[in-house]
Amino acid sequence: MLDDGKPLSGLDAVFRPRSVAVIGASDTETKIGGTPLSYLRTLGYTGRIIPINPKAPEIQGLPAYPNIKDAPGPVDLAIIAVPASLAVQALQDCADAGVKGVVMFSSGFAEVSEEGAANQARMHEIARASGLRLMGPNCLGFMNIEERVFATFAPVVGAGVAPKGRIGLVSQSGAFGGFAFSVARERGIGLSYWITTGNEADLGFSESVEWLASDPGTDVIVGYMEGCRDGDGLRRALDACRRAGKPLIVCKVGKTEAGAKAAASHTAALAGEDAVFDGVFRQYNVVRADSIEECLDIAYAASIAGLPKGPRVGLYTVSGGAGVLMADMAEARGLTVPEFSRETQDKVLAMVPFAGTRNPLDITGQVSQIPGASRTALGLMAADGACDTIVSFISAAGLGPAGMEMAGDIAHVRAARPEVMQVVATLPSPAFRKAVEAAGVPVFEDPNRAVNAVAALARIARGFAASGDGTGDTPAPLTVPADCTEPLALAALGERGLPVVDFRHVRTAAEAGQAAEEIGGPVVVKIVSPDIGHKSDIGGVELNLTGRAAVEAAGDRILTAARTKAPGARLDGLMVAPMRRGVAECVIGVQRDPTFGPVVMFGLGGVHVEALRDVVFRAAPFGEAEAKAMIHQVRAIRLLTHPRGSDPADIDALASLLAQVSRIAAASPGLESADMNPVLALTDGAVILDALLIG
Amino acid sequence: MLDDGKPLSGLDAVFRPRSVAVIGASDTETKIGGTPLSYLRTLGYTGRIIPINPKAPEIQGLPAYPNIKDAPGPVDLAIIAVPASLAVQALQDCADAGVKGVVMFSSGFAEVSEEGAANQARMHEIARASGLRLMGPNCLGFMNIEERVFATFAPVVGAGVAPKGRIGLVSQSGAFGGFAFSVARERGIGLSYWITTGNEADLGFSESVEWLASDPGTDVIVGYMEGCRDGDGLRRALDACRRAGKPLIVCKVGKTEAGAKAAASHTAALAGEDAVFDGVFRQYNVVRADSIEECLDIAYAASIAGLPKGPRVGLYTVSGGAGVLMADMAEARGLTVPEFSRETQDKVLAMVPFAGTRNPLDITGQVSQIPGASRTALGLMAADGACDTIVSFISAAGLGPAGMEMAGDIAHVRAARPEVMQVVATLPSPAFRKAVEAAGVPVFEDPNRAVNAVAALARIARGFAASGDGTGDTPAPLTVPADCTEPLALAALGERGLPVVDFRHVRTAAEAGQAAEEIGGPVVVKIVSPDIGHKSDIGGVELNLTGRAAVEAAGDRILTAARTKAPGARLDGLMVAPMRRGVAECVIGVQRDPTFGPVVMFGLGGVHVEALRDVVFRAAPFGEAEAKAMIHQVRAIRLLTHPRGSDPADIDALASLLAQVSRIAAASPGLESADMNPVLALTDGAVILDALLIG
Repeated sequence: MLDDGKPLSGLDAVFRPRSVAVIGASDTETKIGGTPLSYLRTLGYTGRIIPINPKAPEIQGLPAYPNIKDAPGPVDLAIIAVPASLAVQALQDCADAGVKGVVMFSSGFAEVSEEGAANQARMHEIARASGLRLMGPNCLGFMNIEERVFATFAPVVGAGVAPKGRIGLVSQSGAFGGFAFSVARERGIGLSYWITTGNEADLGFSESVEWLASDPGTDVIVGYMEGCRDGDGLRRALDACRRAGKPLIVCKVGKTEAGAKAAASHTAALAGEDAVFDGVFRQYNVVRADSIEECLDIAYAASIAGLPKGPRVGLYTVSGGAGVLMADMAEARGLTVPEFSRETQDKVLAMVPFAGTRNPLDITGQVSQIPGASRTALGLMAADGACDTIVSFISAAGLGPAGMEMAGDIAHVRAARPEVMQVVATLPSPAFRKAVEAAGVPVFEDPNRAVNAVAALARIARGFAASGDGTGDTPAPLTVPADCTEPLALAALGERGLPVVDFRHVRTAAEAGQAAEEIGGPVVVKIVSPDIGHKSDIGGVELNLTGRAAVEAAGDRILTAARTKAPGARLDGLMVAPMRRGVAECVIGVQRDPTFGPVVMFGLGGVHVEALRDVVFRAAPFGEAEAKAMIHQVRAIRLLTHPRGSDPADIDALASLLAQVSRIAAASPGLESADMNPVLALTDGAVILDALLIG
Repeated sequence: MLDDGKPLSGLDAVFRPRSVAVIGASDTETKIGGTPLSYLRTLGYTGRIIPINPKAPEIQGLPAYPNIKDAPGPVDLAIIAVPASLAVQALQDCADAGVKGVVMFSSGFAEVSEEGAANQARMHEIARASGLRLMGPNCLGFMNIEERVFATFAPVVGAGVAPKGRIGLVSQSGAFGGFAFSVARERGIGLSYWITTGNEADLGFSESVEWLASDPGTDVIVGYMEGCRDGDGLRRALDACRRAGKPLIVCKVGKTEAGAKAAASHTAALAGEDAVFDGVFRQYNVVRADSIEECLDIAYAASIAGLPKGPRVGLYTVSGGAGVLMADMAEARGLTVPEFSRETQDKVLAMVPFAGTRNPLDITGQVSQIPGASRTALGLMAADGACDTIVSFISAAGLGPAGMEMAGDIAHVRAARPEVMQVVATLPSPAFRKAVEAAGVPVFEDPNRAVNAVAALARIARGFAASGDGTGDTPAPLTVPADCTEPLALAALGERGLPVVDFRHVRTAAEAGQAAEEIGGPVVVKIVSPDIGHKSDIGGVELNLTGRAAVEAAGDRILTAARTKAPGARLDGLMVAPMRRGVAECVIGVQRDPTFGPVVMFGLGGVHVEALRDVVFRAAPFGEAEAKAMIHQVRAIRLLTHPRGSDPADIDALASLLAQVSRIAAASPGLESADMNPVLALTDGAVILDALLIG
């Protein structure tokens, strides 16, 4: 992968070439070097096509040349379809000939052996040295549907090409990409580009996505990911999509948590790789889909209808049951189903006396007997202002003549009220599908899949609207003190302006008693040592102590316990701090993720972190709005928002603390990990009660 | 609804009539009285068809009669398709004429007005008095696909009939049923019966399901439910499906929790209607689907393939990516993906060197170059013994000639190893679909939908295998003591053999001190009063008291606080009990559900019940195995199975306690509700620390 900070350079020549050479071209159309030539010749590519083959003067009726260096004129793109043993030389020939882009189908590199990996590294060097861009090796290539560049040997193209559309698809798996292409074709879903990245010796998933974010012919991007070796590049790509306002729907496999992982801290042990990916996707408003079908559902809806203005959905139905079913799913997926105005409801009732009118609007089977009722009802719904999207369920009507009338009604209302997105659920005839899609209205065969797609787009839209959440100024890096103890850690965080508990660090039990008296009220006393991780386990913590005498006695017990139970540990006195009570204990952690670098974790304390793994992650840095979203993502959020016997926690203060921690984490390469556990959420503010920093 | 304990009586005449009369028959085939006549005439019904119309001697070419009473010979089934004003009389005429079953399309009854409801009640009486069975009113009727009984005016039939198959469908919504029928027809999914129940004046959802459970032509049942007025009937139907080994897949709408509900106890307030339905469905191994599509997916798979022997799935794939995607979903849905034996893996590798062999078995694109590889690999997987089901993903191959070869391989292995269920995911041609379905292998276009269906069937299969979980002897009813206090409640439960804490009930603070000394160790002291619900709120509880003096002082404080803060309350002394520590606090509740009668709730204590609503329900009574399933259903189960700093909780003891509570609840009509909160889960046993009984 290129990491020279110049992404996208040279990619136009790859993806929109004016000339394509095929190295290893064959007369046999089913061979790996024959298929792309055949596709390019027969499926409408209008640029120059140059077969390269040392043994034949003509291939598939076109003049052929023995080597790319013999080819006439400049060559934008070369497809290399030769065995692995010849591929490196072929790439060098391309570089020498001034070819700008190469797609390499050849396999037998990093995916099979160390020797192969070494050859692949050679190819990376050739690309870097010459400036050409390389897709593959071991990939199925790509297609530019509009300009008919079929730089692929994917057999699925033989069965037909997906229609031209505005969805770009990037897949790290060729087979997955081929299947998704077939599904799109069979469903009539239009694509702009189809890209498979294979071994990613140069051009990878992230850069391909970033390029599509800049492509004017692409409105929506679908990605299939197995892994990522370049977190920065991925974040740059996700940010490009967000800035371009283009929804990105990703199918990322491998949800199983990475098993035994060397854990320098509590936080690190909890960070399953997948949880971090999940957090980063949320951070950039990427929708993560569970299946190919769901990917295409959401992308299709966005490519036809764009994004809704908000989460409010109006449900039009000819079946009360289907209406409730859609309402259930809408609410489960985070949409709202607001009631229409009394005026709207009365107008509908005046027309259809037994209609359900609150929302869902159940027009009932009577609609077929009242001319114009569906158009009027849809128009009233759109004009009401209560909803950002209308989902219409018209049962199987889309198959027959009544459906075509409804398609006209839908198109009419869509044109009259363009601010209201529309989706329709029915079994559609091809004519119905064509009519509603032309009006900007996607059609789904299942009403719940329609609602699910709308919900995904509403989440994206809300994320896009909320972004621009600044991360603030970059702080100076935090240096973890040598032999860092809890007091040193708290002091270091306190110096950065983070709210830490007002503690005293003392040397003796007697000084502890004195400190307690100064603090007033019940206190906690803890052992201080850079060598003792779990202080409670050795009797190194006593809680809720009141009075000088009790504190002194506790201090003596703690020091004795430490000497007895942790005989090798260096001791550095005692820490005394007031017992604080708040709404709930939280945990904030920092760790360096192998892919994304510094990431921040948040969770509720105690069993919620330990046993229930109710924790969420984001890549640092991030702003307050993202921090708030992060807090609201924990399953046990009600313990902060609806605590028993207390006012709600000050979420703003917690969010501010999280965002500050993220800025410090991002700015501090020397900070390996941090645990702030617990952080006490208060009704007014938040305070760090304990901290562990590892450099 | 009939509640005379004679379900199913007379239903053969309704569902398999030898003669059908249409009252309100019309020559116009699109009219409500013309459509069923036309369907019956033209779609292959072989029994007698008798139009009834007072104005015409012949309808649609058949001799017509002015009244059902004039019709010749016995009439099994009459369809009533007249306006509401004539419907009651028409029903009476049917009763008088000895008709055995009636399907009434007419609307305008309980769904529109009180007068309509009164007329509907009249119809119920006519049915009861005469013994005829009534479907409807306000329904779309039914279809018996095999015997071509189209007793419906559903327009969807006009577009074509779903193939004959082994799925019975029952819907409380006609429009929903019509849509599901259309989807089944378009997907080529075979049905046995299609039944819509409308207003359910007599025959309802439950009895229809129960009848299908007894129908030899039906293997799988799909239900669409909006509500249920007869919990006993529903449980009888669910039990009939379970005993017949027929999977039931239900789409039950209305997941929103019933809002403000008069709550006599803590448990009652938590019981959203939907949570109780959910518990009952789990109890009877009913799969609850979120959408029509999911209902049909699961039912289709079961109707073609039956049920798997267990949850272990082998994944065959031509795409590594799709393999991981399927594995992710399999694990997320409760299936296991075990590794194949070394021997199996070696044999596959010998054939396809770069195959992934652990599971998923990624045969790679090379499979197309190695004759017989797919058949051999599938055969090895099936013979290995590691999996109960094989899901094969073959990308878009099902559309082409390679797919037909694969279909042959699949069928061959299915026949050779019938104990291993198979499902295939691909885009299928009609010929491919036909070939694999004939071999007992369902085909899905999306691999994740295939895995989801297998997971649902594995859950059902496990439930069926585990049932027969006896509920034990019926205990004598529990009578709630008058003015029931905590000591009375604990004593009553203790007398029933339930494990309750060893408490003392005393009159004075001095006696409390004495009791504490007898108990030994730290104790809890509480106020006793039938009038004080939340004892802690008025200072009526003190915890962790050691020594006679401390207990006496606490007793004084508590009595004073009660007199001051609950001045009107009747006081009945104090309760002293040992402080017990265990693995985790749980809550067990009982309440009377309006639909299902006595239901039992289980949850982890504290925030898990209060704020997080992590509670589960079952209808009483149930056995230990069901209780164990219930306990494992709570999200926070790890607090019992993986507690920090303790051995796991004794789940068997908790389950035994839950099952005992359920038996008592079922046997005690005088028990309105009960809260056992907390119940302490121990490493050995469980103990009830506090109880509230309401009679």
